[in-house]
Amino acid sequence: MFGKRDVIVHGTDPFNAETKPEALAASPVTSTDVFYVRNHGAVPEAGDWRLRVGGAVERPLDLSLATLREALPQHQVAATLQCAGNRRAGLIAIRDIPGEAPWGPGATGTATWTGARLADVLALARPRAEARHVGFEGADLSPEAKPPQRFGGSIPLDKACRPEVLLAWAMNGEPLEPVHGAPLRVVVPGYIGARSVKWLERIELRTTPWRGYFQEVVYRLLPEDGTPAPGAGMPLGLVALNADILSVTPTEVRGYAFAGGERFITRVDVSSDGGASWRQAELLEDLGPWAWRHWRAPLSLGPGEHELVVRAWDSSAATQPEDEASLWNPKGYVNNARPRATLKVPQRT
Amino acid sequence: MFGKRDVIVHGTDPFNAETKPEALAASPVTSTDVFYVRNHGAVPEAGDWRLRVGGAVERPLDLSLATLREALPQHQVAATLQCAGNRRAGLIAIRDIPGEAPWGPGATGTATWTGARLADVLALARPRAEARHVGFEGADLSPEAKPPQRFGGSIPLDKACRPEVLLAWAMNGEPLEPVHGAPLRVVVPGYIGARSVKWLERIELRTTPWRGYFQEVVYRLLPEDGTPAPGAGMPLGLVALNADILSVTPTEVRGYAFAGGERFITRVDVSSDGGASWRQAELLEDLGPWAWRHWRAPLSLGPGEHELVVRAWDSSAATQPEDEASLWNPKGYVNNARPRATLKVPQRT
Repeated sequence: MFGKRDVIVHGTDPFNAETKPEALAASPVTSTDVFYVRNHGAVPEAGDWRLRVGGAVERPLDLSLATLREALPQHQVAATLQCAGNRRAGLIAIRDIPGEAPWGPGATGTATWTGARLADVLALARPRAEARHVGFEGADLSPEAKPPQRFGGSIPLDKACRPEVLLAWAMNGEPLEPVHGAPLRVVVPGYIGARSVKWLERIELRTTPWRGYFQEVVYRLLPEDGTPAPGAGMPLGLVALNADILSVTPTEVRGYAFAGGERFITRVDVSSDGGASWRQAELLEDLGPWAWRHWRAPLSLGPGEHELVVRAWDSSAATQPEDEASLWNPKGYVNNARPRATLKVPQRT
Repeated sequence: MFGKRDVIVHGTDPFNAETKPEALAASPVTSTDVFYVRNHGAVPEAGDWRLRVGGAVERPLDLSLATLREALPQHQVAATLQCAGNRRAGLIAIRDIPGEAPWGPGATGTATWTGARLADVLALARPRAEARHVGFEGADLSPEAKPPQRFGGSIPLDKACRPEVLLAWAMNGEPLEPVHGAPLRVVVPGYIGARSVKWLERIELRTTPWRGYFQEVVYRLLPEDGTPAPGAGMPLGLVALNADILSVTPTEVRGYAFAGGERFITRVDVSSDGGASWRQAELLEDLGPWAWRHWRAPLSLGPGEHELVVRAWDSSAATQPEDEASLWNPKGYVNNARPRATLKVPQRT
């Protein structure tokens, strides 16, 4: 399943693994066999699968995958998914975060997803006037939840009706693999990966956001001195502007930048003197509005130690915060500080 | 027209003025008589006014204001407008920006706007399939443009069709005043003020963004060493997350925070030790998704010098950059650094 040399495994029960930087850098579309996995329970056994749509709808649905594929038009989107814990290792280096995986830059990846539009499914179910949120529940039971429960989450109905939100049965042109959510997963471009619920079995139209553990207690940004509790902190949803460095040599630096939400990357700057001066990086292949941009910048670094800093800018002309330490939070989410790297170039002999 | 004690006039020909901090702090809805004015030409003479809608439409329109008001439902939105040059003074303090007004924190304000939905007008005109942008042209001739031209700009058609975008004839419940764009102006919530074109006379459906001076040359973010030129730098559009301090005493600090774009403010933190430690401010009245949040935090500052820093967070869990100096750009736009203030508390005698 995995090209094992190209992933870093953070856990086996449940399985969690991130893509190594060199594998991410290889292509703007991440290979399925190295695509990051953030699971909260065991991969459910394949079996009789149905999708139920209920809650605040005029017409509850109970669909087979065949019905879904035959009844609704098929769409494709190139979208970056990103775990809210991506780059947590940088925060752990400041102060330990017990019980949370030390994700590096690879808890993110970009794939082309194929499936039906969630909006088309909702149109069949006809949301009632009071519906405001769309909840998703997977088949995976998570023993780490309190109390143990299936993984779930919700997004606002307004987002759910947008054309980029898919119920996907294929990834990079192949049937979805079990570890990535087969037979069907949600793909919510611009949102944290936790909302792209895998092994989707139930959609619930709601008047309020999802009340389950994975939205009410975790995947929330706490203040530095906060404690996880139902409703504490701000719920995460849109991905925040972020970037990281994937490779550095004396002659070139490469990485990715992702704007998140409905935004796109407008510029990436690189400094090789710790932020004193900046040059613009070249933005590489544009896969459309829902995908990251890979970037590169030539360097010509002489002997000595060089401090590289990168800052990405989004379509609101906002850029990343500088100070990683001040982003520390008890669950280690949303480290979107400007990435840094130190490169020592030896004297030629 | 203006409560003169409460505004700072930056120019009289054309008229440009910002609201003083104490007037902004007085209410989350800014009084019309002190609301900031950023004009690029003289206020046009009142006269026979018509609104023409053309370009990539099936049915060009030529409407009187009476027709607009009679034909279309009236809507209201509470929206913050913000000049892209708001807080430029902080950048000028780092390095001079000749020819640009030294706006403080008051090139922004919030009003309730009343008018017709732009989407309803567009539905009457029926945009053709190739339309992607909606251009606006005012009646005001700007001698500072090269070549001299009417003020104008465009927004994406997708945004133009959203319900919050109005063609407004009233502000804070009163007929629009001449200096604010009477008889009709655009109000584009979440976008830089320059897109909320005043004295609107012409709407043009387009396949490309507006090519006029005020979008092709200015209102673009240049790199630090850039030079204004057609197409240089990134076009501004969505307002970037921002905040400023409006009043400080030894017992309380108050200010505003505005997320911009489609986002909202989720948290504001205040530090009274230069950023070493933070406490959450109280978010005050919520005027809806398109308005800023005023905030306050109690202080209890003893004798000595105190360095206050504020950081706002938006609904993507992104916060503001720290370093104002690194945001310097040749036109002085988008200063969204964390605001700072120094307060000296004297020894009691």
